[in-house]
Amino acid sequence: MPISALVWGENVHEQTSRVVAGLYPLGMHGTIAAALNQDKDIKAGTVVLQDPEHGLTEERLAKTDVLVWWGHAAHGKVEDAIVERVQKRVWEGMGLIVLHSGHFSKIFKRLMGTPCSLKWREAGERERIWVVNRNHPIAKGLGECIELPNEEMYGEPFTVPEPMETVFVSWFEGGEVFRSGLTYQRGAGRIFYFRPGHETYPTYHHPDVHTVLRNAVHWAHNPMPAWTAVTDAPNVPISAAREPLVEKGPKLHKDGEEGLR
Amino acid sequence: MPISALVWGENVHEQTSRVVAGLYPLGMHGTIAAALNQDKDIKAGTVVLQDPEHGLTEERLAKTDVLVWWGHAAHGKVEDAIVERVQKRVWEGMGLIVLHSGHFSKIFKRLMGTPCSLKWREAGERERIWVVNRNHPIAKGLGECIELPNEEMYGEPFTVPEPMETVFVSWFEGGEVFRSGLTYQRGAGRIFYFRPGHETYPTYHHPDVHTVLRNAVHWAHNPMPAWTAVTDAPNVPISAAREPLVEKGPKLHKDGEEGLR
Amino acid sequence: MPISALVWGENVHEQTSRVVAGLYPLGMHGTIAAALNQDKDIKAGTVVLQDPEHGLTEERLAKTDVLVWWGHAAHGKVEDAIVERVQKRVWEGMGLIVLHSGHFSKIFKRLMGTPCSLKWREAGERERIWVVNRNHPIAKGLGECIELPNEEMYGEPFTVPEPMETVFVSWFEGGEVFRSGLTYQRGAGRIFYFRPGHETYPTYHHPDVHTVLRNAVHWAHNPMPAWTAVTDAPNVPISAAREPLVEKGPKLHKDGEEGLR
Amino acid sequence: MPISALVWGENVHEQTSRVVAGLYPLGMHGTIAAALNQDKDIKAGTVVLQDPEHGLTEERLAKTDVLVWWGHAAHGKVEDAIVERVQKRVWEGMGLIVLHSGHFSKIFKRLMGTPCSLKWREAGERERIWVVNRNHPIAKGLGECIELPNEEMYGEPFTVPEPMETVFVSWFEGGEVFRSGLTYQRGAGRIFYFRPGHETYPTYHHPDVHTVLRNAVHWAHNPMPAWTAVTDAPNVPISAAREPLVEKGPKLHKDGEEGLR
Repeated sequence: MPISALVWGENVHEQTSRVVAGLYPLGMHGTIAAALNQDKDIKAGTVVLQDPEHGLTEERLAKTDVLVWWGHAAHGKVEDAIVERVQKRVWEGMGLIVLHSGHFSKIFKRLMGTPCSLKWREAGERERIWVVNRNHPIAKGLGECIELPNEEMYGEPFTVPEPMETVFVSWFEGGEVFRSGLTYQRGAGRIFYFRPGHETYPTYHHPDVHTVLRNAVHWAHNPMPAWTAVTDAPNVPISAAREPLVEKGPKLHKDGEEGLR
Repeated sequence: MPISALVWGENVHEQTSRVVAGLYPLGMHGTIAAALNQDKDIKAGTVVLQDPEHGLTEERLAKTDVLVWWGHAAHGKVEDAIVERVQKRVWEGMGLIVLHSGHFSKIFKRLMGTPCSLKWREAGERERIWVVNRNHPIAKGLGECIELPNEEMYGEPFTVPEPMETVFVSWFEGGEVFRSGLTYQRGAGRIFYFRPGHETYPTYHHPDVHTVLRNAVHWAHNPMPAWTAVTDAPNVPISAAREPLVEKGPKLHKDGEEGLR
Repeated sequence: MPISALVWGENVHEQTSRVVAGLYPLGMHGTIAAALNQDKDIKAGTVVLQDPEHGLTEERLAKTDVLVWWGHAAHGKVEDAIVERVQKRVWEGMGLIVLHSGHFSKIFKRLMGTPCSLKWREAGERERIWVVNRNHPIAKGLGECIELPNEEMYGEPFTVPEPMETVFVSWFEGGEVFRSGLTYQRGAGRIFYFRPGHETYPTYHHPDVHTVLRNAVHWAHNPMPAWTAVTDAPNVPISAAREPLVEKGPKLHKDGEEGLR
Repeated sequence: MPISALVWGENVHEQTSRVVAGLYPLGMHGTIAAALNQDKDIKAGTVVLQDPEHGLTEERLAKTDVLVWWGHAAHGKVEDAIVERVQKRVWEGMGLIVLHSGHFSKIFKRLMGTPCSLKWREAGERERIWVVNRNHPIAKGLGECIELPNEEMYGEPFTVPEPMETVFVSWFEGGEVFRSGLTYQRGAGRIFYFRPGHETYPTYHHPDVHTVLRNAVHWAHNPMPAWTAVTDAPNVPISAAREPLVEKGPKLHKDGEEGLR
């Protein structure tokens, strides 16, 4: 059974900017989904901010293995309740791939617990994405680097937690560097942040970028059943203790009572 | 100049439970602050949930080097705006020590980005806290373990991110284990989670626990100036680029314009 | 094509101890290989210390995807040249699973860069191995813990580097704890250390232990081509620089000359 | 009492290259030690490869808090027995700062457990070292980056383990990037790798480089007593178990017997 991927697109600049509409007539989400669907082991669909519940209903999320997120102009328009729903699904095991300006999305900031801030410059400069960990599954099929002739610059410090793995580091023509491919684990869910993808450049038409996106979907996919109880804090009664145990001392709770939270 | 520590107490069970009031006539926060003040290089005060703004005004946080947090019954009563204020101060460099049931506090869950769930049992059983990383500054002055005759059990899985360092691991009489001393970095702030401290036991009167608390305040203290711009995403104009740069390609923003967020 | 696993056995106590010979008539290596071969996607063979080149010829290693290592009494008899050969294969991408007393093997100490010391007691006590990261591929198919009625105790501090992931933590009847499932990455190779497996107990006949071993082989398998140049330090001549570059300043080396090492 | 630092110099190119001798009339080690001694809380001395026991006697190491290592042409001339001695001292708590071409020193490769390979080019190009973690003690007093007009290029992949913290990342004029400030913990010892410092350029005369070196000595200093037993594997006899324990099952060892290694 193929991996079920869902590409979430903000779909704002595609509607308001002639440049973006011209580059991405399918929407950025549509272009990304098409790139994923070139892999027969992935089946990718799309939803957008403007859909009911931003397209992220309980049902849709329940059957999604990996969610891909691109947003920029409208982070604030994403409902908090939906963000919490997505976050819980990640904790349960859904993979999440956050792209470019998604660094400031509510979902990414909540999962990182940090500001996720950075420096930036929109000058269409050259970006060279170096493969740091060439044996990482996300780097499969790449050469020693990816060259993008025109990209927005993102510069360090990128205020995220130290990652599980640093997969890519970017060089920019104007003199900056950026850790541009980072992996994280949150609960049962794997998260990959991938830097490039400014909407005024044809980045999501680049074959190496397609390779990374497909690899990342495979890497982030957790085939185990959803850990639906991940937020629970179960009481283990004395009678169920693994070792013989006699209650001692004063206590707050009655046996079997639910905990405070 | 001594380190400025602030102990935040929920101060609920001290008022409602005769057992807790009897064990902690100064309040748990008062007992903890007194233990910190035994170190001449620390100056600790206290505030409680019931204070205006929960005692966590901008002014008070600005002059706090390390915040110590104990809460259990009233996590939900802590205002979101205050939690965001504390989180920003941590990112700017304030240290944070989260104790016991504080694992489910809003501030800890926000900084971790995970559920922070666990298993528990209130049976007054024996806990033995083993020192894993005996050269860690937080373990200074301890023997190979700390023995607490009566404690609440917390059992794995503890759904937090993989820590920077695992300082302690606990053994419980009833058969469980728990990673009971974990360090994290978020922005400029250092965070230490320390497991023991159920309110119906005299844990915060134990000399080894005092040692850990004092060590943790020293470890979490970041003497560098507050990183007040930690959430900013500054534009670096082309004219300020470190390398000569010529603008190329289409763009969204005018030069010097603020970014979207 | 199945994963090619190779189980390396020291094969000393099987020959000198009636207890061990009685428990493991196939040798411990033989029992472990049989457990792996129950998975149709793994094809496991065995070699022993006493084989020419300890069974670890260049040819054999080149076609091995994952090596499983059990040793105890004869770490010092493993030739340094063979250890270096195995280490290079790990860096190139071969997975390595180090079992129990293998914590003091030359290969494990070299890959960790630390003493790998611990405390121990041979009392046949109960060990309970808790799953910390239940969504980890190595924990697939397990319950919340594995109970072994008789095992040797290993206690913290275990002097290894902070792992990539803490998969298991053990509870011992005598009061100690141990981080008993740890993952590492070294070059292109993945390493898993798994604690249980003292030779006087039937641990390698336990179905949950079999599950862990099979899962670990899958996890450690890197399907990408061997990174045979992993120890090289190639010169990038000025003419091959990605950006136009003019030589400046004095230098030690002539262009294209090999580096010092 | 000031921190006792010791700068180890290979002292080969200072003798054989007129360029190096001209830049570093005190030797590179002498220049580095002088920079450290500008800090009244550090007292730095020097030793060189050519000294008896390379200057690294048991006595000298025992009173050294932090060792700074620069080597390039003669890694192979460092005696293995001395390398093992230094490694044990690091495990016991001595800090270690490895500079530039020291990435291929025996001591660094042993402590990392990886090839420590990289790409390089000697073209005197510009290096810009970006501060990734600006609140790290090693970055204290720096601006957002350090600019070196002429340096040797080191390029990724740098085959080291994922660090505890990524403090600096370098940009090179010729188009490469490199993680140029990395921290590690091995036993009780802290390790910092710092990239710049090719012998044909005046890098160790740069004030920002001096700042980093002094900060790194402070960071790597572990004030706790040496963990001299770090390589021991003590038996815990049944009679000394923390919980009442009855011996069960067969065993290899007699009570109190030393373990195998």
